[in-house]
Amino acid sequence: MNLDFVFSPQSLAVSGVSANPESLTNRNFFQPLLDFGYQGRIYPVNPNLTELSGLRAYPTVLDIPGPVDAAVCAVPAHLSIDVMRQCAQAGVKAVTCFTAGFSETGEAEGQQLENKLVEVARSGNVRIIGPNCLGVHHPAVGLTFESGASKKRGNVALLSQSGGNTRELLLVGARRGIEFSKVISYGNASDLNEADFLEYFAQDPNSLVIGAYMEGIKEPRRFLHALRGLEGRKPVVILKGGRTSAGARAVVSHTSSLAGDQQVWDAMCRQTGCTQVDNLPELADSLLAFSMLKSPRGRRVGILGIGGGATVLAADDCEKAGLIVPPFPVEIRQELAQFTPAAGTGLLNPVDTSSDVYWEPVLFAESARIIARYEGIDMIFVMFATFQAVRRGVEALRSQIEAILEVGAEIDKPLLIVLFTAGLLEGEKVAEDVNPLFVDAGFPVFPTFQRAAKAVDRFMIYPRNRDS
Amino acid sequence: MNLDFVFSPQSLAVSGVSANPESLTNRNFFQPLLDFGYQGRIYPVNPNLTELSGLRAYPTVLDIPGPVDAAVCAVPAHLSIDVMRQCAQAGVKAVTCFTAGFSETGEAEGQQLENKLVEVARSGNVRIIGPNCLGVHHPAVGLTFESGASKKRGNVALLSQSGGNTRELLLVGARRGIEFSKVISYGNASDLNEADFLEYFAQDPNSLVIGAYMEGIKEPRRFLHALRGLEGRKPVVILKGGRTSAGARAVVSHTSSLAGDQQVWDAMCRQTGCTQVDNLPELADSLLAFSMLKSPRGRRVGILGIGGGATVLAADDCEKAGLIVPPFPVEIRQELAQFTPAAGTGLLNPVDTSSDVYWEPVLFAESARIIARYEGIDMIFVMFATFQAVRRGVEALRSQIEAILEVGAEIDKPLLIVLFTAGLLEGEKVAEDVNPLFVDAGFPVFPTFQRAAKAVDRFMIYPRNRDS
Repeated sequence: MNLDFVFSPQSLAVSGVSANPESLTNRNFFQPLLDFGYQGRIYPVNPNLTELSGLRAYPTVLDIPGPVDAAVCAVPAHLSIDVMRQCAQAGVKAVTCFTAGFSETGEAEGQQLENKLVEVARSGNVRIIGPNCLGVHHPAVGLTFESGASKKRGNVALLSQSGGNTRELLLVGARRGIEFSKVISYGNASDLNEADFLEYFAQDPNSLVIGAYMEGIKEPRRFLHALRGLEGRKPVVILKGGRTSAGARAVVSHTSSLAGDQQVWDAMCRQTGCTQVDNLPELADSLLAFSMLKSPRGRRVGILGIGGGATVLAADDCEKAGLIVPPFPVEIRQELAQFTPAAGTGLLNPVDTSSDVYWEPVLFAESARIIARYEGIDMIFVMFATFQAVRRGVEALRSQIEAILEVGAEIDKPLLIVLFTAGLLEGEKVAEDVNPLFVDAGFPVFPTFQRAAKAVDRFMIYPRNRDS
Repeated sequence: MNLDFVFSPQSLAVSGVSANPESLTNRNFFQPLLDFGYQGRIYPVNPNLTELSGLRAYPTVLDIPGPVDAAVCAVPAHLSIDVMRQCAQAGVKAVTCFTAGFSETGEAEGQQLENKLVEVARSGNVRIIGPNCLGVHHPAVGLTFESGASKKRGNVALLSQSGGNTRELLLVGARRGIEFSKVISYGNASDLNEADFLEYFAQDPNSLVIGAYMEGIKEPRRFLHALRGLEGRKPVVILKGGRTSAGARAVVSHTSSLAGDQQVWDAMCRQTGCTQVDNLPELADSLLAFSMLKSPRGRRVGILGIGGGATVLAADDCEKAGLIVPPFPVEIRQELAQFTPAAGTGLLNPVDTSSDVYWEPVLFAESARIIARYEGIDMIFVMFATFQAVRRGVEALRSQIEAILEVGAEIDKPLLIVLFTAGLLEGEKVAEDVNPLFVDAGFPVFPTFQRAAKAVDRFMIYPRNRDS
């Protein structure tokens, strides 16, 4: 099914806005549309308002002159049936139902309310997103629920049953350069569900990588079929919420989902070449790798860093994750030794360079060049420890980074960055300053070797990359 | 052997200081002694200086009037033999040899130099720490190599072959409330080695938890014997560098260590009830848990947080790590439901509370109290998402936290905090602001449920905690 009417409406009614700019509905829906410059018409709906932020407000959707393609329903649950009925009458095609208090409450009343909502929508040819969700983020048309998200049009599609997790991924993505094409937070999936969105993203030419946070499956056959169709075409990365017994209980009260049998779930992912991850940071890491990383020819990594213990652990992290850190031959070591002192360094791979080389951009870049030239490695990891850079200043670090980015642009092997902060605020501040340099140049940045290596391992397992 | 002469010298010569305050020796040794208010006498040693920061400087150690208990040797490797000889003549008992360029270079020359250094020291009854190390951090006497470390006297001893990793743990510890009793960075372990330090820490009444970053073992029998003696007395947490083939290669060039057979290593840890961890953050997490956490009676966790998806994943993280998140009985849910709305919440454990309750300190604390009262759980995890708190302001968050800390002080079950920043700078800033509230009150803080749960799992596996 073509869901353009969901993702690219030309007009949007927001029911439940308030005069208070800090109200949940204003913050989640009205204000973000203004911040993103939504390209369609915005109709605030509230019987007590005549105007909001310079836009005319209407008592009900039925009072809006002209067509209304889509609506957000953010009124209390017991009022939402009326709003849905009005939307149906007004010819609205898609309603994002933000309101919670339906089937996920586990109460008969909530279940009946959700049944009624669906019934009213179906009889009026309205499709529901949710309830209990944030709906659509589509930067190309300026439609969003999160002002802090990136406005760039990216290539990563995301479907998610959790509004909070989606918001977090959007914010993390904006920092790390994970740029989204279309995102849907779909909550209880009372009507449109995972299969609808996956099928749509499968056909979307702007979506080349697909991420998912899922708590259950409404239509397993359709979903599996869509996954099969995507195999080898577009990577799909799934984080499954509710894999444990406590998690399975929690997804019932969160989105009234049935967590399902985890072995069946695993088999489905295995059979379709789908990447499973264990938590949100890993989901972000994998989406970053799939959307930004050049395919390495193999699993052999060259590591350039500083610090004896730090590079030992970097090598361990890479090999524990299934990558290979081969020793450099004597020629490569000799080239490095021409300007790297022998004392307090290591040149075997990992390279633990000297402080003099590390802080001299020309020499640091030359080290990376020599390593990248070695035919025995397929990619190069360069480590920057920002918490140690505090004393030297951001400018010195910037010079190093720029020199490395030049090397990255010259070589045909993937270059990955580990920007290590040790979780210390001073390091985080420096990282925030320099991170855009990497993102803008298109090089993926990871906070630790462990996470970088795991993301690369998963990237390499994906058939298209493995075979290349 | 009593190593008080290493850790509590009454006078210390620093050989290799310079007029340049930014020199490595000044930054690593001289300045930190001033910053920490070292209680003994400091003797700067450099033939070209007569004074440094108001202290009289001496051409050599031999020129210092009065006894010199210990020295730091930070001159180039080829000059260190002479310095060692002078230290021997001057009756210095312990020399921290910072200088690198010895056996770890893998060159015959470096090996010979190290042999010579040891020979000169032995014949003069001097004990060597290192070479290729940072030496002693002992806050009780103001002896340190890291000005950013905490000055508090703690109960965690640390032995480490990597100066950089030690420094990182000190900085992370200062933030997270891991307070150290005595720390030793011992590099190549040419003379004093892991067994000496472990035996000493075993007898030290101020060291109740022992951490280690090790790349090899010089004296496996003595070390094993010391571990056996510690079993059930003091927890020992070890991070082994060089577990993979690339890591094993790297430890040779870092500290000329033999990584050894990992299965033998694992067996040793298993037999002695020693906790092994996989990386530095996990080492910090475990040291924090062992030094700060009250023993829970069992593995059953009550989770209080906000966000449907976030609490689903929190429950999954806990159970994946081997903890149990049991469902609350109807009475507990009813108590919570008295002030928690039904829509958009979950009360089954994990508790996904409403925004109104979360931001109302009295109600949030009452939620924690109700959960803690339930006899079916052994500990309580409370989640704060600082990146979401940015809009509400730090003061509002502080009120919530203070209310929770009151509950923590009332109850006899351990309370753990997950202070979740999503890696976003705004969240990190807020976390930095409020983190001391928890640390000062003695409650351990973890950045994710995954890391909290893993640390608790390891804590519970430790025999003393398991049996209690």
